[in-house]
Amino acid sequence: MAEANGTQPVAAERQITSALLVIGDEILSGRTKDKNIGHIAERLTEIGADLREVRVVPDVEEDIVDALNALRRRYTYVFTTGGIGPTHDDITADAVAKAFGVSIDVDPRAKAMLLQFIAEKDLNEARLRMARIPAGADLIANSVSKAPGFRIGNVIVMAGVPAIMHAMLEVVLPTLDTGPRMLSETVLANAKEGDIAAPLKAIAERFPGVSIGSYPFTSDTGPNTNLVVRSRDPHALAAAREAVMAMVAGRQSVG
Amino acid sequence: MAEANGTQPVAAERQITSALLVIGDEILSGRTKDKNIGHIAERLTEIGADLREVRVVPDVEEDIVDALNALRRRYTYVFTTGGIGPTHDDITADAVAKAFGVSIDVDPRAKAMLLQFIAEKDLNEARLRMARIPAGADLIANSVSKAPGFRIGNVIVMAGVPAIMHAMLEVVLPTLDTGPRMLSETVLANAKEGDIAAPLKAIAERFPGVSIGSYPFTSDTGPNTNLVVRSRDPHALAAAREAVMAMVAGRQSVG
Repeated sequence: MAEANGTQPVAAERQITSALLVIGDEILSGRTKDKNIGHIAERLTEIGADLREVRVVPDVEEDIVDALNALRRRYTYVFTTGGIGPTHDDITADAVAKAFGVSIDVDPRAKAMLLQFIAEKDLNEARLRMARIPAGADLIANSVSKAPGFRIGNVIVMAGVPAIMHAMLEVVLPTLDTGPRMLSETVLANAKEGDIAAPLKAIAERFPGVSIGSYPFTSDTGPNTNLVVRSRDPHALAAAREAVMAMVAGRQSVG
Repeated sequence: MAEANGTQPVAAERQITSALLVIGDEILSGRTKDKNIGHIAERLTEIGADLREVRVVPDVEEDIVDALNALRRRYTYVFTTGGIGPTHDDITADAVAKAFGVSIDVDPRAKAMLLQFIAEKDLNEARLRMARIPAGADLIANSVSKAPGFRIGNVIVMAGVPAIMHAMLEVVLPTLDTGPRMLSETVLANAKEGDIAAPLKAIAERFPGVSIGSYPFTSDTGPNTNLVVRSRDPHALAAAREAVMAMVAGRQSVG
C-alpha cells in the first residue's frame, strides 16, 4: 500500500491534461453542429496530452471568464474555439484578457499578419478587431486566413471555423509538453454487450492499469460490441488485450 | 431605469434553461464523435427550454457527480447522455444517486420493462444493471431497446446511443415546463464578414432585446456570411430583421 501510494504522484506529475472550451451561441442553439470537439480530442490523444473535459458556453463574457478560470486552474492546457472574428459577437479575446486580468489592444505583430492577406484600404476597424490580443500573449499563425490565434499562459485561443482551427492546432501541438501516449486496441466481441459484461468486468478488475470500454453497435448481422482496451503501458495493454481476445474466442468455440 | 429594473426579473423567471452533460471516455478520446449535442440543442431551442451549457466528462464518478451538482443548481433542467448500459464502465446511474444522496437498487418497474425485450433466461446480472435506478426517480420509456432512462429532480438521464436517446428525448420533452421560444431568422449578407461588421454592430446596439450573430462561410462564389437574428419577441425580431435586410440591400445597390 505504501509503495503504491509512493509511486502514484510521480505518474500523476508526468501526465499532461487538456480541456476544451467551445464558445458560441450557434452551437448551443443547434444551428451549427460542432465539428471541432472530435478532431481536437483525436489529436490530443495522439500526442499524449489527453482531453479530460469539454465545456460549451454562449457568447456571454461572464460565462466565458468563469469557465476559463475553472478549467485553466485544473488542466495543463485549455484550448478554446470560436469568437475571434471581426464582428460584435466575437468577444473571446476580451474575455480571455479579463480572465487573466491583463489589458488588450491592437497588437502590431497581429496587424502585420492581417496585412499579408487584407489590403490596407480594407483593414477597417472591424477587421482590426481580429488583431486585438491580450498583453503578454504569443501569436499563433494561421495559414488559411492570416488572422492569428494566440496563447497566454496555458490557454490556447483558436478560431471556430474548422479549417482555420486545424491549421492553428497543428502550429501549436509541437510546442506543447506531452506525456506517455494513451494506447488503444479494439477487439470485436461478436456478442451482445450484455452477454459479455460479466467476463469483461472480471478482466477489467484483473488489469487495474488498463481501461476497458464496451461500445455496442448494430451491424447488418445484428447487435455487436466493440471492446476498447486502453493503457499508457504497452505491456499491460498487450496482456489485457490478450485476455479479452481469449474471452471472445472461448465464447465462440463454445457457441 | 427603475422601470427596466422592475420588468427584468419577470422575464428571467419565465425563462427555462437547460444544460447537457455528456458522459464518456470515448468522446474525450475522439474514438466516438458525438452526435447528440447538436440534436438536443435543436430540440430544446424548438420547445423553448434553451440549452445554455454543455459539459463532456469521462467515466469517472467524482467528475460526473461534481459536474452534475454544478449544473443542476444553475439550470432548470440537466440532461445527461451515456453510461447507462450493462457493462462495468456504465456508472451514470450510480453517480446520479450519489449526487442526489439517495440509494440505488434494481427497480421492479425497470426490470419489467427489460423483460418486454429480453427473455428471462437472458436477464443476467449484467443486464439487470440497466434496471438499477436511483430511489425516487421516474422512469423514461425507451421504445428502441426497452432499457429505461430516468428522471430525478431536474435531472434527465438518457442513453448515449443516438437512436435510443432520440426516443427517450421525445418522451420527456412534452412533460417539461417551457418558456417563450427563441425565434430566429437568417439573412444572407452577400458580403465578407469584415465588410459589414460596423453596420451590423450599429443594428445590434439599436435592438438590445435581439441577438445578432454573424457566421462566415465559403461558397462556390467566394466568402459570404449568414446573419442570424434571434429574439423571443416576434415584433422585435421582425424589426431587427428588416434593419439587417435594409443594410444588406443598401450595400448591394451601392456596390
